[in-house]
Amino acid sequence: MNYEMPEINLKALFLGDKGENVDLFKEILLKVVDEHVGWRQNYQPQDLPVITPYDKTSESFQDTANHMRSVFNELSSKLRTESLPWHTAGRFWGHMNSETLMPAIIAYTAAMLWNGNNVAYESSPGTSQMEEEVGHQLCSMMSYKEGKSWGHICADGSIANLEGLWYARNMKSLPLAIKEIAPEYVEGKSEWELLNMSTNEILDIMEQIPDKLDDVKAKSARSGRYLEKLGKWLIPQTKHYSWLKAADIIGIGLDCVEAIDVDSSYHMDIDKLEASIRKLAAENIPILGVVGVVGSTEEGQIDNIHKIVALREKLEKEGIYYYIHVDAAYGGYARAIFLDQNDEFIAFDKIDEMYKKHNIFTDMSLKNEWLTEEVYNAFKAMSQVETITIDPHKMGYIPYSAGAIVIKDSRMRDAISYFATYVFEKDADIPALLGAYILEGSKAGATAASVWTAHHVLPLNITGYGKLMGASIEGAYRFYNFLKDRKFNVNGKVIKIHPLTKPDFNMVDYVFNEEGNTDLEKMNKLNHDFFEYASYVKGDLYNNEFLTSHTDFAIPDYGDSPLDFVQNLGFSRAEWDRAGKVTILRACALSPYAHDAQVFEEYAAKIEEAMQEKLEKIYMSEMNE
Amino acid sequence: MNYEMPEINLKALFLGDKGENVDLFKEILLKVVDEHVGWRQNYQPQDLPVITPYDKTSESFQDTANHMRSVFNELSSKLRTESLPWHTAGRFWGHMNSETLMPAIIAYTAAMLWNGNNVAYESSPGTSQMEEEVGHQLCSMMSYKEGKSWGHICADGSIANLEGLWYARNMKSLPLAIKEIAPEYVEGKSEWELLNMSTNEILDIMEQIPDKLDDVKAKSARSGRYLEKLGKWLIPQTKHYSWLKAADIIGIGLDCVEAIDVDSSYHMDIDKLEASIRKLAAENIPILGVVGVVGSTEEGQIDNIHKIVALREKLEKEGIYYYIHVDAAYGGYARAIFLDQNDEFIAFDKIDEMYKKHNIFTDMSLKNEWLTEEVYNAFKAMSQVETITIDPHKMGYIPYSAGAIVIKDSRMRDAISYFATYVFEKDADIPALLGAYILEGSKAGATAASVWTAHHVLPLNITGYGKLMGASIEGAYRFYNFLKDRKFNVNGKVIKIHPLTKPDFNMVDYVFNEEGNTDLEKMNKLNHDFFEYASYVKGDLYNNEFLTSHTDFAIPDYGDSPLDFVQNLGFSRAEWDRAGKVTILRACALSPYAHDAQVFEEYAAKIEEAMQEKLEKIYMSEMNE
Repeated sequence: MNYEMPEINLKALFLGDKGENVDLFKEILLKVVDEHVGWRQNYQPQDLPVITPYDKTSESFQDTANHMRSVFNELSSKLRTESLPWHTAGRFWGHMNSETLMPAIIAYTAAMLWNGNNVAYESSPGTSQMEEEVGHQLCSMMSYKEGKSWGHICADGSIANLEGLWYARNMKSLPLAIKEIAPEYVEGKSEWELLNMSTNEILDIMEQIPDKLDDVKAKSARSGRYLEKLGKWLIPQTKHYSWLKAADIIGIGLDCVEAIDVDSSYHMDIDKLEASIRKLAAENIPILGVVGVVGSTEEGQIDNIHKIVALREKLEKEGIYYYIHVDAAYGGYARAIFLDQNDEFIAFDKIDEMYKKHNIFTDMSLKNEWLTEEVYNAFKAMSQVETITIDPHKMGYIPYSAGAIVIKDSRMRDAISYFATYVFEKDADIPALLGAYILEGSKAGATAASVWTAHHVLPLNITGYGKLMGASIEGAYRFYNFLKDRKFNVNGKVIKIHPLTKPDFNMVDYVFNEEGNTDLEKMNKLNHDFFEYASYVKGDLYNNEFLTSHTDFAIPDYGDSPLDFVQNLGFSRAEWDRAGKVTILRACALSPYAHDAQVFEEYAAKIEEAMQEKLEKIYMSEMNE
Repeated sequence: MNYEMPEINLKALFLGDKGENVDLFKEILLKVVDEHVGWRQNYQPQDLPVITPYDKTSESFQDTANHMRSVFNELSSKLRTESLPWHTAGRFWGHMNSETLMPAIIAYTAAMLWNGNNVAYESSPGTSQMEEEVGHQLCSMMSYKEGKSWGHICADGSIANLEGLWYARNMKSLPLAIKEIAPEYVEGKSEWELLNMSTNEILDIMEQIPDKLDDVKAKSARSGRYLEKLGKWLIPQTKHYSWLKAADIIGIGLDCVEAIDVDSSYHMDIDKLEASIRKLAAENIPILGVVGVVGSTEEGQIDNIHKIVALREKLEKEGIYYYIHVDAAYGGYARAIFLDQNDEFIAFDKIDEMYKKHNIFTDMSLKNEWLTEEVYNAFKAMSQVETITIDPHKMGYIPYSAGAIVIKDSRMRDAISYFATYVFEKDADIPALLGAYILEGSKAGATAASVWTAHHVLPLNITGYGKLMGASIEGAYRFYNFLKDRKFNVNGKVIKIHPLTKPDFNMVDYVFNEEGNTDLEKMNKLNHDFFEYASYVKGDLYNNEFLTSHTDFAIPDYGDSPLDFVQNLGFSRAEWDRAGKVTILRACALSPYAHDAQVFEEYAAKIEEAMQEKLEKIYMSEMNE
């Protein structure tokens, strides 16, 4: 079905910071429940209900129902006491939590009533079709070619990244297996050349030998062979621990992971990437793959994917090839802001016109502050990489858990596929049989229904998700501008806020520092104390008037990339070496409301007051120590 | 909170085959929604709603809401057209689908509104505590020691099994790493001895060297070392393909997996297990681990866990040790039927008394048909193994996706743990920081809330889940007895039903065969045709009066284990070799209603009629060919 798309009003798609849309929420929720119950009633209506009126008035039924009601009282109390108030329009600036899309929540509940399991088509025809469609939509959002690419939902970004590494590992090993089973296809190639064949070359050969596919796979890395030959997996220095887990799990091991330095804006340093690759090549060590990050977990920064791709093109001419996986768990959906209503990537010089037409920003000067050609080019180049992780449960505003992975060339699926008779009806003309192609087994059809519904309400371009991305980025820049050089007077001291870096996307990192302070450990303590007062650590979450999250950039993980920042704050290099880390406050600006100038200003005054109060508490408790 | 447990009436806990309990469902659902909205409204009530009455009457708001309503019309239509009617009290005897617990569905929706992410305590205090509690409840269900064991929810059974293998792999490699880092602790041990140390011995050493823990881990299998030295992973021949995937992913490779033959009742043959281990030991190949299955995917059978444990005790005296992982994804919750109201394992000779007292079976003769000492002892011995997979989304009657793993000795967590600064507040007195210890990253707090609520409504013993397990087993035996030797007359031919084997649990496999037929391929075709008429393949799911699932037992996977069955049906050995497989129909008896004699009898007549009709269609279409 094609929808006549209206001009989307985001305010109709969330429950509301004060539950303003609860009537609409209940209307649709009860409708799906009634439709489900009607479906139950009308399946073979000659069958009588097994739960009779007599059953329902029996003592044990009433007791059991009351017991259940008591458990729900406890559940509700626990949830209300120990959850984060991220629903607020402007007081929560912390973890990746916010309002999620009302249609996604309701669709999840609706589909949960049917409880499909998308591991196999047979037990979930409806939601399996939705998952197939969602996969293609995500591919289209990456400008992967229709009909050639494929994707699916998975448990989360860590699992998607692990699956990407699984693809890379098995793909890289295939030429060695081809050499054993069908040597004529790789005749004359040295081991180095075999380990530097492009993904495309490998898949072209695999396509020519359908009868030998199983034998080749049996000799590939899946057998346990060649793991030590495949080379290094290069990740940005700001490495997310999920990459260490992934290398451990997948068997190549942590010793195969090499971190590439990031620059002072927390992007992978492409010159250093090139130098590392050349150094390894000189030692005859291949590159298993390179990970670019679109939306780093702690800074929200966007690696220069176009430069990683360009470097590959350059090196390929020298006989060096590497697989590229983009970890866009966080930033993947942001690509929707660059796609026009036909899902075409918008030319850079048409951006302003399109954004004005579709009301992507309320204040175009904030768009101008945000969008650089670097960021634009990085997003554009995503279409060139083998696999991409995209989490619907992050910038897709879908409830947890919904991760996803897309693959550029669907032929890669065969490099990792398995078949189990009982779940698969061979030769049936139905969507991809998920269990055979993915890391997981059983998986909720409800997740697919939830994402499918959200994607139908909000298309993955500027008519839909693009607007939501714009709202988020605009809100982030309002917060960023609010923080810049803001000062507080506490006990006669001046405390100033310093943002870490200009955000590539919607994450704003910052620190408080006392003017004139040259003791980095003292600054770290101040920020950690602030975090405690602005989180679950100190007191009552529900009555907290400003909430944030924190992180540590420590030398073992970050090297000297924070040094510029730290020095600009007036700390010496020696001080950096002594403290060994900088404690950062971190705000993911996900609120769909804070882009509005009036809303933001109202809350800015409240945030300022809450910050002042927390700082006073910190200095007060210091004085009492 | 401790609940005064009433006598549980299962009929109060499900929506009902005809939606009989929709009023109760809506009552609690709307209550949790209202409580959530109240929570939003009362967080900082001085903040005014950002969605104003003017917003709500604007054209774009109305258009967006109508657009959303249209998408829901399409979603609902798709779900009602292409879902399975497993809610019926007696017409669905196929995949592992059925009614799920009403409290689990509502709790999921409730907690989804708060959208906690249990990867980190910080963003989900309430649901993180619930997950910790659920883990301990599952440990208690396995009679793992309180305070010593640990468990958590994961995406599904495949992921839990993969995590079990990850534990086994890293544990097995630790002695080799200890030898490098702290050789004094393993002085004098040969490599063979190092690779045959018990899990307990290894953990005792690790406990003595806290300062060297990180160094030891860095030299363990997580580094990529030793994978080729760890030996073989032994699984039952009826191997689920998830074990092949797991060995591939974890890097030990498919070549490390060895299948142990099953007997004609589809249990791992323990004599053959012993013979294989001895043969490997003679070749100096260690055993990485042995997998026992509690509730095999295609037969529901229960491996003799007590014998796998006893064999280990015997071989340990000869210097051979193996890790044991039990895959109880399907059958795990069935252990609740053996635990008394204090969670103590019931003595075999007290079973009848307890079952009568708690009304576990309506007809004790069906209990007598079912329960053998073998099955009892297999469940009892589960407390002796290192790790167990248990899927709440299978016999826990929880909606997808909810898998789980429990570990006997919580010290094992450190063998695989990771830490990432930004999510973890060190030294905080809070539950286990999940992201550091598990395969996955982000995960829904809602899943934990759903399982937590179900476990509080139905304790994991005979006062709660035990009753539900009893209902399921009793229903399965009613179906099994209904099938035995049932005959149909079609076109002058007699078609008879033959169950595959007496069920250890609640899965009933069976075949149709024409009397006098000696052509195995013909029988296979008949059963495959029957499946097509009883599934999505032929026509309209919703109007189908009997639904089942099917599987193939083929020689490459099953060897000759189906030979006895096939020969008893009158097929020759030559015929078996020629056909190479037997096509089986498969019924997971999950309905919480079919244990009732009257309900079952009503449906038995309807099933018989529907079977007759399908057989007639098959024979009719054959005549027309």
